[in-house]
Amino acid sequence: MANASPLDPVINLAKRRGFVFQSGEIYGGSRSAWDYGPLGTALKENIKRQWWQFMVQGRDDIVGLDSAVILPRKVWEVSGHVEVFSDPLVESLYTHKRFRADHLLEAYEEKHGHPAPNGLADIKDPDTGQPGNWTEPQNFSGLLKTFLGPVDNEEGMAYLRPETAQGIFTNFANVMGAARMKPPFGIAQVGKSFRNEITPGNFIFRTREFEQMEMEYFVEPGTDDEWFQYWIDACEEWFLGLGMTPDNIRRYEHPTEKLSHYSKRTVDLEYRFRFAGSEWGELMGVANRTDFDLKTHSEGSGVDLSYFDQTKNERWIPFVIEPAFGLTRALMAFLVDAYHEDEAPNTKGGVDKRIVLRLDRRLAPVKVAVLPLSRNEQLSPVAKNLAADLRKYWNIDFDDAGAIGRRYRRQDEIGTPFCITVDFDTLEDNAVTIRERDSMGQQRISLEKVRGYLAEQLLGA
Amino acid sequence: MANASPLDPVINLAKRRGFVFQSGEIYGGSRSAWDYGPLGTALKENIKRQWWQFMVQGRDDIVGLDSAVILPRKVWEVSGHVEVFSDPLVESLYTHKRFRADHLLEAYEEKHGHPAPNGLADIKDPDTGQPGNWTEPQNFSGLLKTFLGPVDNEEGMAYLRPETAQGIFTNFANVMGAARMKPPFGIAQVGKSFRNEITPGNFIFRTREFEQMEMEYFVEPGTDDEWFQYWIDACEEWFLGLGMTPDNIRRYEHPTEKLSHYSKRTVDLEYRFRFAGSEWGELMGVANRTDFDLKTHSEGSGVDLSYFDQTKNERWIPFVIEPAFGLTRALMAFLVDAYHEDEAPNTKGGVDKRIVLRLDRRLAPVKVAVLPLSRNEQLSPVAKNLAADLRKYWNIDFDDAGAIGRRYRRQDEIGTPFCITVDFDTLEDNAVTIRERDSMGQQRISLEKVRGYLAEQLLGA
Repeated sequence: MANASPLDPVINLAKRRGFVFQSGEIYGGSRSAWDYGPLGTALKENIKRQWWQFMVQGRDDIVGLDSAVILPRKVWEVSGHVEVFSDPLVESLYTHKRFRADHLLEAYEEKHGHPAPNGLADIKDPDTGQPGNWTEPQNFSGLLKTFLGPVDNEEGMAYLRPETAQGIFTNFANVMGAARMKPPFGIAQVGKSFRNEITPGNFIFRTREFEQMEMEYFVEPGTDDEWFQYWIDACEEWFLGLGMTPDNIRRYEHPTEKLSHYSKRTVDLEYRFRFAGSEWGELMGVANRTDFDLKTHSEGSGVDLSYFDQTKNERWIPFVIEPAFGLTRALMAFLVDAYHEDEAPNTKGGVDKRIVLRLDRRLAPVKVAVLPLSRNEQLSPVAKNLAADLRKYWNIDFDDAGAIGRRYRRQDEIGTPFCITVDFDTLEDNAVTIRERDSMGQQRISLEKVRGYLAEQLLGA
Repeated sequence: MANASPLDPVINLAKRRGFVFQSGEIYGGSRSAWDYGPLGTALKENIKRQWWQFMVQGRDDIVGLDSAVILPRKVWEVSGHVEVFSDPLVESLYTHKRFRADHLLEAYEEKHGHPAPNGLADIKDPDTGQPGNWTEPQNFSGLLKTFLGPVDNEEGMAYLRPETAQGIFTNFANVMGAARMKPPFGIAQVGKSFRNEITPGNFIFRTREFEQMEMEYFVEPGTDDEWFQYWIDACEEWFLGLGMTPDNIRRYEHPTEKLSHYSKRTVDLEYRFRFAGSEWGELMGVANRTDFDLKTHSEGSGVDLSYFDQTKNERWIPFVIEPAFGLTRALMAFLVDAYHEDEAPNTKGGVDKRIVLRLDRRLAPVKVAVLPLSRNEQLSPVAKNLAADLRKYWNIDFDDAGAIGRRYRRQDEIGTPFCITVDFDTLEDNAVTIRERDSMGQQRISLEKVRGYLAEQLLGA
């Protein structure tokens, strides 16, 4: 993160305007997590709501769930996570720091254009530059553990979930029954997950605490390939429909030998984050988890997680197609994609540089800024009443400090779609000027029509 | 929980219809947490949104935050939690199980009408009934710990937050600056917290993993008593405004000697949950945290967390008034309060018993159910089109299975405010029948006016 990156202006904006703060900053900060400030909280909530509309509310075949972060240890033993969800770590014999062996080898290959001929022996200690001197790789669990109950012992040991998906599988039969669903149908949830990443980094891209939006879609075996295609297409459409630049998204098909233990096929959508080290990063992935999860949980728990297909008079265990999104990664991608620098006319007849976040209106954290032309006994009450009325429906800013051009700049750089100016003419004509963020075009609209005008412009927001 | 309780019908409904499931049920279940099914997830989300509208979006003096669950250990050392956030536990010398000493003594007093004359010596072992034989009380931390980074040792030890508030205090200066606020102003957040409760129980009332809605309101010292009164009144109003029965809410003033280490005054709102053991339970609390938190974090971190009051040319550390809500407790209280059994006319001219959740329309998990009178080639497409259109705006159910009376009952017991029947007349008059949940009154409304009618009835939902 020390190197200059094309991301730096976006990250600086995010910190300066309170989208994202370093967690525990006053105590030197944490590398494990980030805190979301007022604007980041609103942006994240808006992404979540659009996803929920896309996945749950707008469909008749998917229902929602909100399962716990702490699940019994047995769930993670049966799911395979305790055994498989681990990384090979080596320890430097100079510094006794641990590193992921595969990452060290990949970095060598990237730098030199060929694999390390002698393996780890060729890898220098990253801190001291001394020649390779490493322990044998040892598996290190990516699960975070905690202890429940009055005694700190094995009995009370539990894991924080590394994915929300297992909470969906363990509730499969309960949800199918209570919500009277039958395959093909899905269960979606949004929530925190925790992974003990060895090397958190790239701003909010890789953290130990993060938020996921996952959906498990249960289908008849044999229809899974078709549904896989449906979901990878639908998910890309969702990003594009919210204004993401098509050239900044690509698909990555996981090679068969690198698939997760449960997956028959996985395709990621990658976003062109332009990290210092690598241009593209994973945004979300669709996996064909087959009947692995329901089958192993059926066997592990003794509870039947199959479906009886009355039309065919057959019993089968559904296959699962899983679109899994990182909410905080989506937020970062939307921020990066929306960031633009262009020019705006100034009062002297020239132009000023401006930063503008061209966020889709549905995602913009603040929908409307109300800006009285000056701090004035007559303008203030009109502007404040207008803002108070609009707050019933949307997230509204009120700003009466400084020159109007500067206030426009402040709103442009956080992506506010509309600025409403209350000026001295307002006192005569009961109308206000509404300025649109991208075109910077202005319209005069009567006060009584403002709410209706905005409702139409902000449809679905 | 084995005893019959007036709560049982509500809990049964919640489980049967998929509001709440036992977490990890197929593995015998967890006492630490519950999972929220499709209806519970929607109800919880609606409560959260109403709270956010009340606390953040609808006001100009409060902004939102979403800080991390895992905060550096230092935060909890400085806040006092590592030292103070603990309970006195005693161990039975018969079973080696641990219990809260104060709970054992309180239970004795409740049962016998007087305190135990010889203290713990009078308390029998709860499992075996044998005469008291206890270890000395030892303090046991309510904090859940985990380990971050590649090595499981003290260095990587961190705590899961037992309250969201500390994330607000550590971000105080960042938020005040970025959002350009000045006291009196507030920072609000909703999120998961974790406490190692010794005795989780009473359904979702006391769990180790739970969700909070907290707001820290920063005020000038000397104005804190007045703001305290403002917030306890406003919070009670919020519950009443969402339809909670006034007689089921009361205030409880914490006696001075039992106040938390940071509090000058605390008043709880209690709800009449009607637990088997005790009728009332804490719903939320308002605490006057004084300048304790900002002062200790200033000293602990070396970062100045004071405010410079330009109008008075003075620097001071704000006092904090904290309204802290349990989201999951609020959900339980709204469910209990909404639960009613009454009678509905049946087709034979008599009446049937019905269960109805009289939830405020803004809270109801499903807003509208679309019910074609029968499964029919002509009715189905009309009903499905209507449902698809309404799903753009609200959470909609579609149900075409069984007698219409039975389908009304299914919607009544989950609190759906409106049922729309598509019948054979619809094919002639392009109109549908809309039935209201509480009055069971019916209106004929033309298809093109349905959306507008609902928009008016569901304002703010």
